[in-house]
Amino acid sequence: MEKRGAMVRNKRVVLRDYVSGYPTEGDMEVRKGEMKLEVPRGSKAVVVKNLYLSCDTYMRLLMNRTAVELLKPYTPGSPITGFGVSRIVDSGHPNFKVGDLVWGTTGWEEYSLIANPEALQKIEHTDVPLSYFIGILGMPGMTAYVGFYKVCNAKKGDTVFISAASGAIGQIVGQFAKLMGCYVVGCAGSKEKVDLLKSTFGFDDAFNYKEERDLDAALKRYFPEGIDIYFDNVGGKMLDAVLLNMKVRGRITLCGMVSQYSSDSKEGVTNLMHAIYKRVRIEGFAVYDHFDEYHKFLEFLLSHIRKGKIVYVEDTAEGLENGPSALVRILNGGNVGKQLVLVARE
Amino acid sequence: MEKRGAMVRNKRVVLRDYVSGYPTEGDMEVRKGEMKLEVPRGSKAVVVKNLYLSCDTYMRLLMNRTAVELLKPYTPGSPITGFGVSRIVDSGHPNFKVGDLVWGTTGWEEYSLIANPEALQKIEHTDVPLSYFIGILGMPGMTAYVGFYKVCNAKKGDTVFISAASGAIGQIVGQFAKLMGCYVVGCAGSKEKVDLLKSTFGFDDAFNYKEERDLDAALKRYFPEGIDIYFDNVGGKMLDAVLLNMKVRGRITLCGMVSQYSSDSKEGVTNLMHAIYKRVRIEGFAVYDHFDEYHKFLEFLLSHIRKGKIVYVEDTAEGLENGPSALVRILNGGNVGKQLVLVARE
Repeated sequence: MEKRGAMVRNKRVVLRDYVSGYPTEGDMEVRKGEMKLEVPRGSKAVVVKNLYLSCDTYMRLLMNRTAVELLKPYTPGSPITGFGVSRIVDSGHPNFKVGDLVWGTTGWEEYSLIANPEALQKIEHTDVPLSYFIGILGMPGMTAYVGFYKVCNAKKGDTVFISAASGAIGQIVGQFAKLMGCYVVGCAGSKEKVDLLKSTFGFDDAFNYKEERDLDAALKRYFPEGIDIYFDNVGGKMLDAVLLNMKVRGRITLCGMVSQYSSDSKEGVTNLMHAIYKRVRIEGFAVYDHFDEYHKFLEFLLSHIRKGKIVYVEDTAEGLENGPSALVRILNGGNVGKQLVLVARE
Repeated sequence: MEKRGAMVRNKRVVLRDYVSGYPTEGDMEVRKGEMKLEVPRGSKAVVVKNLYLSCDTYMRLLMNRTAVELLKPYTPGSPITGFGVSRIVDSGHPNFKVGDLVWGTTGWEEYSLIANPEALQKIEHTDVPLSYFIGILGMPGMTAYVGFYKVCNAKKGDTVFISAASGAIGQIVGQFAKLMGCYVVGCAGSKEKVDLLKSTFGFDDAFNYKEERDLDAALKRYFPEGIDIYFDNVGGKMLDAVLLNMKVRGRITLCGMVSQYSSDSKEGVTNLMHAIYKRVRIEGFAVYDHFDEYHKFLEFLLSHIRKGKIVYVEDTAEGLENGPSALVRILNGGNVGKQLVLVARE
C-alpha cells in the first residue's frame, strides 16, 4: 500500500475545452503529474487512491460551458470529476482513517485530494463487488430506486416501458418492476443488449430501437393496450412516440434524456397534447433530493443481491487511459451494462 | 313559449367538411330546416330550445377527421355540438319537465332533440346570469376549479403564471390564485385583455405575449425568482419558455394547447430536460373525470359570485348566424373574455 507522505505519479484525465455536439476521446487528454500523498496540515481533507471510476451520462452536461441546476461545468485544463470508489491514503478528517473504503465524487486521476470529504460514504459491506458502489449500490442504483418506488407510483399488473433499459439504471428499474409483478418491456440499441434484457434481467420483452423505422408502431406492438409507466432515460423521439401510447392516468418518469445531451439542436416533443387527452403525469426527479434514504435503499438492495433476486451487469474498461473512450462510449451506446473504469486493483 | 307538437323553423350550424389548419367561417354553414317540437313516442328523449351556446377551443379538435381520447369528431353535414343552456320544450324523461332550464351538450341549432338527456344538468339557481352555466358555472369554471384546486397543488405565496389568462378558464384560475394569496401574472394577446387582467381580475401583473420578441426574457422580468405554478392553456412556444423559468419542484398543469390545435405541424417542446433539473411535475387533466364534484363546485362558486369576490367577463355574439365567426374568433384570440352565442332570449 502507498505510504502516507510519499510523492507518487498521478495520471489524470483532463478536459481540453468545453464540448459542443458529441464528445470524442480527443476532447479529453491523459496527462501525467505527481502528487504528495499528504493532506495539508490542519485541513479536514482526505487523500484517496481511486480504484473504480463511474461513467455516467450526466457527465456530458458538465462539458458544456453553461451550467444548469445542480450541475457545475467542468474546468478545462483540470481533471474531470465523477463518482468513484476509493481508499483513504491520508486523512485530516475524524470520520475517515487510512485504509477506509469510500464512494462519492472524486477526480478522474490515480490519486485525489478531496477538500470536503463529508459527502463521501464509507463502504462497510465488502461481500459484494466494490465496483457496485458506483453502480447498483451507488448513484445509479439509488436513482432507479427513487425513480421507480417514489415517482412511478407503480402497482402490480402495470405495463412498464423502459428506455436505455440495459444501462446502469434501466436494468435495475426493470428488475424492480418485475419484482412488483408488472409487465416490463425495454428498448436498447443492439441485439446483444436486447438478449441481455430478456435472458438476464427477466424483461417480458425487449426490442432494438435502431431497427424500428416507426417507434409508434413498435410500441403499439408491445403495448396493444397502452403503457401505464414510462421510465424515460433518453427523451427526444422515443418520448414523443411514447406520448401517443400512454394509458389514461399513465405516468412518465423523467430520469434522463441522453438523446439530447450531445445534440446542439434539440428534438422537439410534439405530442404533449396527448398528456391532456390521457391525463398523464410527467415528472422529473433528482436523486440528490433523496440521499437521506440511502441506508434504507442499501439494505433493500443488498438483501436482494445476496438472494440472487437482482443481478447487475457491468462493462469494465481497464486503466485510466481507457477512461475517455469509455466515457465517449456511453454517450453513443457502445457499452453493454453499467460502464466503469478500473483504475487500480487493491 | 313554443307549443309542444308545433312544427317550427330550425336554423343549424353545420360543419361542411373536416378542417385542416385554422378554421374559417366558410368551414361552417348556417342551414335552415324545420323541426317538430315533440319527442318520439315512448322514448326518453327531450326536445330543447337552445338559449346560449358556448364557444370552446376543444371544439376545434372535433373538426379533425381523427378522433382522440374523449373527443369524437363532428360529422360533416350535421350540426356541430357543444355546451349550451336550454329550456325543455318536450320531455319523455321523468327527470325533466316542460319549462325546465338545463345545461349540457346540445346542438348548434335553435332546437335540439337530445336522445340521452341523463347528462344534462338542471339549472336551479336563477339569481345569476343563465349564460354563466356554460361559463363560470359550467365546464370552463369546473375546469378552472379542478385544475387549480386539485392539480396545481398551490399554496399561499406561490408564484403563478397563466396563459390565455383572460379567456373562459384563465380569468377564473387567476382569481382563485389571488384568493389563495399567490402572486399571479397572466399573458394575453392584446392591450385590452392585459388591462382587463390587471383592473378587473386583480392579477398582480400581465403582459401581451405578441409584443414580446423573447418569451424567456419576458418571463424572467415578471418572475425573477422563477415560477411555482404554470397553468397552461396554450402549449407550444410559451410552454417551452416556461420550462426555462420553473422553480425547483414547480408544477405545470396542462389544461389546453390552443396554439397547437389548428397548426398542421406542431411546435416541438425542446426544454423538457429542465423538468429533470428542476424536478418539475407536468400533469394533464380532464374535467370530465371530476363531475361528481360539480355540486360542491357550484356552491363554492355561487357563494363567491354572490359576494362579488369572483367576477366573470363574457363576450356575447348575438344570433346563431354569428356563431361560426365567434367560434373562429376564439381560435385566433379575437374574443375578450368567455365567448358565447346568444341564440334566443327567453
